[in-house]
Amino acid sequence: MAEYRLHCFAQSDNAYKPALMLELCGASWEPVFVDFFHGAHKSPEYLALNEMSEVPVLEHQGKVLSQSGVILDYLADQLGWFAPTGEDERREVLRWILWDNHKLTANCATWRFLANFAPEAMRNPDVIDFLSGRAKMALGILDKHLEGRTWIVGARMTVADLSCAGYMFYENEYPIDWGAEYPNFVAWRERIRVLPGWKHPYELMPGHPIPA
Amino acid sequence: MAEYRLHCFAQSDNAYKPALMLELCGASWEPVFVDFFHGAHKSPEYLALNEMSEVPVLEHQGKVLSQSGVILDYLADQLGWFAPTGEDERREVLRWILWDNHKLTANCATWRFLANFAPEAMRNPDVIDFLSGRAKMALGILDKHLEGRTWIVGARMTVADLSCAGYMFYENEYPIDWGAEYPNFVAWRERIRVLPGWKHPYELMPGHPIPA
Repeated sequence: MAEYRLHCFAQSDNAYKPALMLELCGASWEPVFVDFFHGAHKSPEYLALNEMSEVPVLEHQGKVLSQSGVILDYLADQLGWFAPTGEDERREVLRWILWDNHKLTANCATWRFLANFAPEAMRNPDVIDFLSGRAKMALGILDKHLEGRTWIVGARMTVADLSCAGYMFYENEYPIDWGAEYPNFVAWRERIRVLPGWKHPYELMPGHPIPA
Repeated sequence: MAEYRLHCFAQSDNAYKPALMLELCGASWEPVFVDFFHGAHKSPEYLALNEMSEVPVLEHQGKVLSQSGVILDYLADQLGWFAPTGEDERREVLRWILWDNHKLTANCATWRFLANFAPEAMRNPDVIDFLSGRAKMALGILDKHLEGRTWIVGARMTVADLSCAGYMFYENEYPIDWGAEYPNFVAWRERIRVLPGWKHPYELMPGHPIPA
């Protein structure tokens, strides 16, 4: 059995964050498929793992961890990769992970879900417009931050990059001209895409295409 | 001059989190008013403090910190109050702070803003419905978690409680029958309201009522 077990599904940007980290680090890990589109995250068994009813969940040596930011923090400790150095850098990394959860992922992921995967009745154009406006504001802030920088914090790739990169390889699922609108962001994304071991979320996690 | 300077405004649930912590700890602090409703958070001076264009920002001994979760973490270290004990508890506290940012505050604050403070043209009922649905889902998860518990993590109040409590004292600004819908949540809120030194956000931070 693999050392790490990650409850995930292919379309989840939040699950991709630790899945990509495990893969880039060459960890012994296996995905456990959560059939989100058929409500598996609401089953009593799943809620016993994570009362927040979300993926990802990581199981490791009897520990059960949820929230991608917590799992990234744990994996950085365990694997020794992508960790910040010192207290100031730790807080700067945490700042970007919190911002990602609050502003970047929260809006991008919900926008993408409604526009691509939701039942027709849920695809309200006003709601999609609202979310896309907020997502683009967040993308603009990150793009500006990345001007003249290689990574989000300091001179090395950290878990802050992995957190903010969660949804960005699903790029065809947003009506955005990425290169024209967010050039620094795109250059940063390509630096991650060429890392040894990088895989697209649809290759790395089970459930693509969505089971009937 | 006070030891801590917190850039904030009365209506900000995110600023209230560290403001309440500073007050409960009896710290030497002063609020610095950010005139959000007249766009002060978008000024070049403010963006030089926080490129994310958000409140709160904490200034302390030459450090400039943003994101309420980072500031709470910093204050817990500095002041010795409300800090988690050990690595497992630290991650459990971080889990709830991340969830608060992603699911609870993100939806509650945006819903409250649109319903109470936004210009008429922005108050789209479909968007408000969407956000309130997601906010109520989050409130339900927290209410369930608090069943049989005194505090969110462990046996003591921690920064996880301060984070999740950020917006909840603006209770009259939501069309929710709190006691009927979220009884465990309300009992927990009242435990915070009776703490020595507790103040309502409109008393603790400047800018209420909104300047013309």
